[in-house]
Amino acid sequence: MDYVYASRISSLQPSAIREILKVTADPSVISFAAGNPSPEAFPSRELAELAAGLFASGAASALQYGVSEGYAPLREITAARLREKFGIGSPDDDLIIVSGGQQGVELTAKVLLNEGDTVVCEEPSFIGALNAFRSYGVKLAGVPCGERGMDMDALAQRLSAEPRPKLIYTIPTFQNPTGATMPAERRRLLVELAARFDVPLLEDDPYRELRYEGEDAPALKSLDTGGRVIYCGSFSKVIAPGIRLGYICAPKGLMQKLIVAKQVSDVHSNLFFQALVCEYIKRYDIDAHIGQIRSLYRRKRDLMASLLHKQFSFTLPQGGLFIWAELPQGLDGFEYCRRAAAKKVAAVPGASFLTDERAASRAIRLNFSLPSFGQIEQGCALLGEALCEYMG
Amino acid sequence: MDYVYASRISSLQPSAIREILKVTADPSVISFAAGNPSPEAFPSRELAELAAGLFASGAASALQYGVSEGYAPLREITAARLREKFGIGSPDDDLIIVSGGQQGVELTAKVLLNEGDTVVCEEPSFIGALNAFRSYGVKLAGVPCGERGMDMDALAQRLSAEPRPKLIYTIPTFQNPTGATMPAERRRLLVELAARFDVPLLEDDPYRELRYEGEDAPALKSLDTGGRVIYCGSFSKVIAPGIRLGYICAPKGLMQKLIVAKQVSDVHSNLFFQALVCEYIKRYDIDAHIGQIRSLYRRKRDLMASLLHKQFSFTLPQGGLFIWAELPQGLDGFEYCRRAAAKKVAAVPGASFLTDERAASRAIRLNFSLPSFGQIEQGCALLGEALCEYMG
Repeated sequence: MDYVYASRISSLQPSAIREILKVTADPSVISFAAGNPSPEAFPSRELAELAAGLFASGAASALQYGVSEGYAPLREITAARLREKFGIGSPDDDLIIVSGGQQGVELTAKVLLNEGDTVVCEEPSFIGALNAFRSYGVKLAGVPCGERGMDMDALAQRLSAEPRPKLIYTIPTFQNPTGATMPAERRRLLVELAARFDVPLLEDDPYRELRYEGEDAPALKSLDTGGRVIYCGSFSKVIAPGIRLGYICAPKGLMQKLIVAKQVSDVHSNLFFQALVCEYIKRYDIDAHIGQIRSLYRRKRDLMASLLHKQFSFTLPQGGLFIWAELPQGLDGFEYCRRAAAKKVAAVPGASFLTDERAASRAIRLNFSLPSFGQIEQGCALLGEALCEYMG
Repeated sequence: MDYVYASRISSLQPSAIREILKVTADPSVISFAAGNPSPEAFPSRELAELAAGLFASGAASALQYGVSEGYAPLREITAARLREKFGIGSPDDDLIIVSGGQQGVELTAKVLLNEGDTVVCEEPSFIGALNAFRSYGVKLAGVPCGERGMDMDALAQRLSAEPRPKLIYTIPTFQNPTGATMPAERRRLLVELAARFDVPLLEDDPYRELRYEGEDAPALKSLDTGGRVIYCGSFSKVIAPGIRLGYICAPKGLMQKLIVAKQVSDVHSNLFFQALVCEYIKRYDIDAHIGQIRSLYRRKRDLMASLLHKQFSFTLPQGGLFIWAELPQGLDGFEYCRRAAAKKVAAVPGASFLTDERAASRAIRLNFSLPSFGQIEQGCALLGEALCEYMG
């Protein structure tokens, strides 16, 4: 039969990025195109021990149905850690476990946004979140994002214009794709603007703990006194992404709706790994583990930056997983990535992260966490060759 | 701040059932209210061995990001098993792994249904699916479900009425909550009706393999020649529910949209357990394992039925997890369950499964898979006492 799709979904197409990512299935291709952590960064040995222990003590309750809110001890230990380390969460908030940071964004969209509503986001921004908003028939209004994050004047202008935006979506720390981090002063301004225009703020913060230099900037959530910030975090970058676990910290009233949405979405997240992550945090030193990840990624970032800096223009990110490089004026990121892929090195064209998918960009996004040091050396040489040839 | 919720979600309330289920948190309460498999039915020892093996061989790829479609070897082995055992799936279909049967229903709703659309379902039907439809602002049109499943005359009438339904949702085998199974002839009629009115059919089939007597009825999916049936299955009842794994088998064109919806929802399902389930099916005899579950649940069903039959009116289900009992005329299921809960035995009032949540019902749903044999004896005695007292 000819299916008639819901209007919310009919405009959602597999993106052009997929064509370029396809080449990464070829093992001879060096991929800077992913957003993956390094497998060296997974605490596999510890998880193996904990899994064996959980099975030995009778894993029945971890294999049984659980509650939609998530495994209570993991909720508690996560909430306590966020509160103590980052001042995130108040007595008016609640924290639930979700199936990765992506689900946090999707559930927030489902609960707050009607078709035709407008969401303000950084331009460029994380494609997974943009597609989650698109999948609810929502309009995206991009606000330019420089190396200090979202432009506050442009944001204020957009918030005063009609139609009034229903949500501000931001990745204030080590933004995907730009690597930009919003300074503390600008964060205060952002929270004030959200209050002045009475618009909720969705703070997507999966990279917070991957800082390689400089001082932590406060989470928007920690600056909020009006119950206006919905905070999404993830275990993907500090434990492992394949287990699909993240969390939302949000005001209790809103949380009731998010829990209902979570329940109809997948009942609850994988309970066995919720128990494992909880035990991991209890029994091991997760801060020391994250310290090791930071040290590894810092060296990878520095190597990639040192190899790229003669030919590409970019700001060194203080953390996260990506370098956002600009090609010389007149060149196109998409065409460049096509040429690079032919040389067996994959990068993502910047246009993939724009709210208008048809717009052009001379930027490219390069991931340094997944490739090995050798691959970074070899891949950067190939990127340089591709650039020379493209420039003629 | 005062959040303004999306219209699709604002009508979705935590249901009255929750109040009754709360009593089940008290360990002294015997619960017939769940839909859980028995922990004895989990292949814990085998999963422990496979997990140890996977960690020992380097679990990096099972802890890393995967593709939204799911772990390819699990997709293949699941598709092959469905095809060989039940004739489910054709070369025009594709199969993806999702986070439990619930997600299969939710993604289908997201991809096919606009707000205000009508979905036809059995009356009564599975509350999790009804709430998934409600969460997209969809209207529910219930068609009476007797012991032979959905009434075909009433369905034909509803399909010819305006507004034309966009989807038929059915649990044809060991229906939740009624336990009803649609005979083969009626299944053919249902597929014909769907073809005649050109409406897609969502076949929710988590209980198919839990048959305690009688002959298998063909899956609607196996009778469909028009690419009209979307088939959702689950590993929750044959492996374990806490791992949150299920699958959708559907025509390839539609599947492209379902994959995009899956991607924005949670990127992919827990990859470590996808690999474990795949290895379990490869290395162990899942059919023998299911045979043991069947034997266990058959004995539990028979015990519960033998204890209830003097006081309650019900049809013995040929499979599944539930007995659907009717109280004598004039009594109310909700009030009865409230009284039973006070006696420390929990059941679910039939009204919870109706499309109109304000309607009354003198039915109750009783689960026999989770309680022990001793709990079934004790709980049925308490149910009898509560009935006597209610009848005065």
